[in-house]
Amino acid sequence: MIEETIQNISPIDNAWLERAAERQTQLTKPPGSLGALEEIANRLAAIRRTLRPEVFRQRIYVVAADHGVVAEGVSAYPREVTAQMVYNFLRGGAAINVLARDCGVEVKVVDAGVDADFGDAPDLIRAKVARGAANFTRGPAMTREQAVRSVTIGVGLARSAAADGVEMIGIGEMGIGNTTSASAITAALTGIAPEAVTGYGTGIDEAGWRRKVSAVKRGLEINKPDRNDSLDLLAKVGGAEIGVMTGITLGAAAESIPVVADGFISTSAAALACLFCPTARDYLFIAHRSQEAGHDALIEFIGRQPLLDMQMRLGEGTGAALAMRLIGSAARLLCEMATFAEAGVSDRDK
Amino acid sequence: MIEETIQNISPIDNAWLERAAERQTQLTKPPGSLGALEEIANRLAAIRRTLRPEVFRQRIYVVAADHGVVAEGVSAYPREVTAQMVYNFLRGGAAINVLARDCGVEVKVVDAGVDADFGDAPDLIRAKVARGAANFTRGPAMTREQAVRSVTIGVGLARSAAADGVEMIGIGEMGIGNTTSASAITAALTGIAPEAVTGYGTGIDEAGWRRKVSAVKRGLEINKPDRNDSLDLLAKVGGAEIGVMTGITLGAAAESIPVVADGFISTSAAALACLFCPTARDYLFIAHRSQEAGHDALIEFIGRQPLLDMQMRLGEGTGAALAMRLIGSAARLLCEMATFAEAGVSDRDK
Repeated sequence: MIEETIQNISPIDNAWLERAAERQTQLTKPPGSLGALEEIANRLAAIRRTLRPEVFRQRIYVVAADHGVVAEGVSAYPREVTAQMVYNFLRGGAAINVLARDCGVEVKVVDAGVDADFGDAPDLIRAKVARGAANFTRGPAMTREQAVRSVTIGVGLARSAAADGVEMIGIGEMGIGNTTSASAITAALTGIAPEAVTGYGTGIDEAGWRRKVSAVKRGLEINKPDRNDSLDLLAKVGGAEIGVMTGITLGAAAESIPVVADGFISTSAAALACLFCPTARDYLFIAHRSQEAGHDALIEFIGRQPLLDMQMRLGEGTGAALAMRLIGSAARLLCEMATFAEAGVSDRDK
Repeated sequence: MIEETIQNISPIDNAWLERAAERQTQLTKPPGSLGALEEIANRLAAIRRTLRPEVFRQRIYVVAADHGVVAEGVSAYPREVTAQMVYNFLRGGAAINVLARDCGVEVKVVDAGVDADFGDAPDLIRAKVARGAANFTRGPAMTREQAVRSVTIGVGLARSAAADGVEMIGIGEMGIGNTTSASAITAALTGIAPEAVTGYGTGIDEAGWRRKVSAVKRGLEINKPDRNDSLDLLAKVGGAEIGVMTGITLGAAAESIPVVADGFISTSAAALACLFCPTARDYLFIAHRSQEAGHDALIEFIGRQPLLDMQMRLGEGTGAALAMRLIGSAARLLCEMATFAEAGVSDRDK
């Protein structure tokens, strides 16, 4: 299923990019004066093959999983918080719920591997790959089969979003300990030293940061992930929520749906998707520049600039919600602005 | 009226800032993880003296005026475009209209000094100070009386917004030639060389840029504006729309309403307001970092960081609309997020 999905990812059509860029020059504004909003709208037009790429239905998947590496003392919060926050998401009290209501985005919560049992809930998707990833300082976080399953689940989520008429997908996450996984993935993918791509996560102190760097180093030494093999990286130092988000990214690209990565962990999943298939990048937006240390390295690896810089480091898809609204605004400008001819406005002196 | 308004501007209350910051630590997120959104919400709470600073009604004043300095060949567009764009605003076809609809913001268009006669229109406020400012390379752009009138009009607009229950005000503008005025104000206010604070405006070529720099230099030499006197700066090298926006900023601060400056020209007006009354800064947000060369100098002069950097340089209040929505989101997070106690989420290990 992963192979088939990758086969279905085509580069966006430059002819549509050019058509959109030409339309931009006819709208009542100096050429280029809407800056990044023009580029965003043009890419959206090319992804969706229309000069009217307005986005009506948007969804964020908040994917949750636990991490055995928490036993190494890498987080400021206890492991139970992952499950507690899932309940918070389902009751609508978390930051992502507030921003999703504010931005007109649906939230679906995915249990990809939380070490707790949830009942049924309308916005909960139960897709547990394991009850938390294993402690990767002692061996692989997941089996290769679990890694494949997590990606496959993500592809399925993108397909069901497409079937529901969703026109833009955001990826966000919750998982105490998962910045440690994302740092390990980043160090392995980019070859940058663990110290430089390991941050303070939810707010650990210096001693905690040293334990975290040590965990990343030991994880890489013991598991020796292959930096050219997404599934190997995912299985050895990743986690189920990261795999699901990687799958969503691939699945969205295969369905020609724009996908918005939130912060550091979501971007590590997007980077793995780009390693699976570099063309996935055409469909990808990076919501914001996270405060987490390793994010810049991933941004450079992927080669897409983030849309916002609000010094955020919460995750959950919070930055994605804000960025999806900006992308929607960019699309509406292309759709709704009057042209010089329509408005009877003189074009520039030529 | 200007003096009286300045008397009514009080510093925001640090006790409210602290109460809001304390509330932030109780919400279900790592402390500080919402970055700038927390600071924004806290300042909004202090401005409005409530821990529930949600913004329901917002308005952008798009203030238009003409500039005689256009005769010096400083703009890529002909002078008539100011009036043509006013019609475009009134018909809803301009970028600001699209973004205002998208962001849930009212738009009021103010004719502060356009060289054209408009009929009545529901969203047009007729407050013509002159039929365009005079060419400031040959003498003052306005009389001191005209400058006072423009600021007074702005104060009145802020008061009427307050009377209408508007809870956040944005300032935007339209005026062919007005980046030349804003550059002259910036050079005078900051002492930075005209070359460094003069940009390409709507998109002039190199020869146009040299004419523009020359116009700024001649304007400063001939008029010798007093950099410590807002009204002198405004009269000699400013314009009616800049004066009105200065007045709106002062009036909003006096009414304890947050005010959002859009881009380069709006920020030059906000800077003049801060020169009138440094405390106005407490109520001021700068929407975005404009692509226009002089904006950074004004940002430093005022001492507030812009919220967005979308490489925009359109004006009209377009950046303000996007930033006002972000500010509204920040407020909603403070209002609506669950606390650790409410959500049954474990707080960090202490």
